[in-house]
Order: sequence, then C-alpha cells, then structure tokens
Amino acid sequence: MDSHIAAVPLDKAYRLINHGPTILVSAQHNGVQNVMAASWACALDFSPPKLTVVLDKSVKTRELIEQSARFVIQVPTVAQLELTSRVGSLSLYSDPDKLAHCGVNLFEIEGQSLPFVTGCSAWLACTLIPEPHNQTTYDLFIGEVTGAWADTRVFKDGHWQFETADPAWRSLHYIAGGHYYAIGEALDVSENTHS
Amino acid sequence: MDSHIAAVPLDKAYRLINHGPTILVSAQHNGVQNVMAASWACALDFSPPKLTVVLDKSVKTRELIEQSARFVIQVPTVAQLELTSRVGSLSLYSDPDKLAHCGVNLFEIEGQSLPFVTGCSAWLACTLIPEPHNQTTYDLFIGEVTGAWADTRVFKDGHWQFETADPAWRSLHYIAGGHYYAIGEALDVSENTHS
Repeated sequence: MDSHIAAVPLDKAYRLINHGPTILVSAQHNGVQNVMAASWACALDFSPPKLTVVLDKSVKTRELIEQSARFVIQVPTVAQLELTSRVGSLSLYSDPDKLAHCGVNLFEIEGQSLPFVTGCSAWLACTLIPEPHNQTTYDLFIGEVTGAWADTRVFKDGHWQFETADPAWRSLHYIAGGHYYAIGEALDVSENTHS
Repeated sequence: MDSHIAAVPLDKAYRLINHGPTILVSAQHNGVQNVMAASWACALDFSPPKLTVVLDKSVKTRELIEQSARFVIQVPTVAQLELTSRVGSLSLYSDPDKLAHCGVNLFEIEGQSLPFVTGCSAWLACTLIPEPHNQTTYDLFIGEVTGAWADTRVFKDGHWQFETADPAWRSLHYIAGGHYYAIGEALDVSENTHS
C-alpha cells in the first residue's frame, strides 16, 4: 500500500463523501473485477457509518456486489477525469478488457478482499446490507462502511485539504453530457453562528 | 414569483442536485412551516425523477413531511452560507421564531401548496413515496419530483452556468464543523472519450 494512504477513523468516514463527489464503485467475485462511476452515492449514517448507492440493473458491478455482498466506494480526482468518464461509459459486458482500456490499476489493502482503485483520494470498504425491496424497486443499495482510508496529501486529521493540496487532487462533481465541476473554494462559518 | 425563476423540464430535474450540493428541505402542515439544511440528499431516478433525503428523527421538518407527504428540496448559494448554517443548527422545537431568526423568506409557486425558500438557485417539489421500513430503520425518505424550477441567472437551457454566473450563485458542499466548499471550476470530457 502506498505510504501516503492512511486509515480514517470510522466515525469520520462520512466526511469523505459528505460534499457530494462523483465516486467510483468497485467489486469482485470469482476472479472477476469491475469498476464503474456513479454520481448517486450518499452518506446515510454516522455510526456505524452507512451509505447508499444507486446501481442500475444493466451494470456488471451490481451483479458482482449481489454475489459478493462487498464493494468499495472511492473518490476519484481531477487527475482521473478521463478514467472516471471512461469507466462510466464502457461496460464489462461488451468489453472484457474494460479496466485495462480505461487505465485502471487496482491495489489491495491487507485484510480486505476487495479491489481498490489506485490514485483515488479516499476509499470506503462496504458490506452490503441486503434490502431486496429497495434493490429491486429503486436500484438502491445500502452499505455499511467497515473500513476507510484516504491519501494524506489531500485528507488529513479528519479534514479535506483541498485548499492547500495540489489542484489535481480536487474531487469531481458530475452534471451530465461529459460536463463536470471540480470542488472549489473553502468557506467557513464562524463558530458562534454554527452552534 | 421572481421573473428570473423558470420551470425546469422534469427529465432534467436530476441535474439540479447531481453535483452533490448541500440542500435545504422545507415543508408545511396546518400552518406550521419549517426549513432545515441537509447534506444527505441524492438523486434516485431520472423518469419519473425521484430523490432520497435522510431526515433525523429529532427534526421538526420530518414531522411536517410525515404529516403532509410533501416537501421541497432546494439548492442554497454561497450568498446564503450563514442562512444555511443557521437553519441547520437551530430547531423549530426550541425556537418557534426560527425562520425569522435565520433570515429565511418564503415564497409560493402557483399550484403548489409548499414553502419555497427565496434566494436559492433551484427548487424541486416532491411528493413522499411512503416507505415505512426505510423511514423507521434508516431515516431515509424517498420523494418523487413533481415540479422543478431554477433561477435562470445560474441554471439555463438544462445546464448549470457556474462558470459564467456571479460567484455568489455557486452551490455549497458541506463537510463538518462549519466547513464548506463552494463548487469550482468546470471540466469537460471530450465527446469521443465520453461515448
């Protein structure tokens, strides 16, 4: 594991996605690994941390998650803009070499049988909380976060460091039609207002 | 209604929250109106458009939504940073004059019996899709979007205009402890990549 990657305490894991970034979902089962992009992921609880992610019935990653009951939600960076767009467009069903064609490299974290995408800023290892009605009716999946990590060059001491980190580390926020925004300027509310 | 506010076609309503902004939730019942801030709101479907929002059992707005089955999700701006922080901190339970103390002004949209917050950049009128298990177990509420509007000074022709609009219109992305980021620079992926 890259020496810049550090564990994030579970009670602060929600902060990794609280600002609404576009994320990458990865999973593996029986030797098949896949990665997709998704905008519709959201924190659901603080402790134990949970999150929701919407996975269309057409995507291979959904099948891998239904089979393995585990997945990773990770936060891609501006440096990974093309990679993010490609894994969101190509399907493993039509291109068995999708990950290579998208420039995706995976790494392992000890004790986790999950594929982590190299170069992201943060990773949340999740265990599926089976909710068949939500999954079937809404394509809505709930995960409990069992481990969290971040690259200390952009997330340190429980806080994002976008204002001082290299701009290539900024998170991506997708709209539609290949159009994204990067996260921007930091704004702080004084303590007496935010009681 | 302000002349800058225009209806957004329902099939493009998801774009109003696709970039993961912090939002305001408003609702009313029996003459009681309330507004709260939330980070945990997310698109759920394109057509008909649906969304999810997490509402803690302690908040008055949840009670109003359970009673009226309707609510508004709206996107506050950098100009509304203090307002957003205040409605996220004060409770109507402890301060019956919360809205006045937070500087919130409400307006109406014809045909909608809902309270809309003045000065936001976008509004999504929602009807609750009752899912008692999700609501009780996860504080997770699902809404179908029945109407959408945006201020044309920052959202026009189906697209956010953050790159050209006054910076005061940028969306807010909350982390924790009074710390927010504004949305930033636009990034586009070339068409042949984003097939």
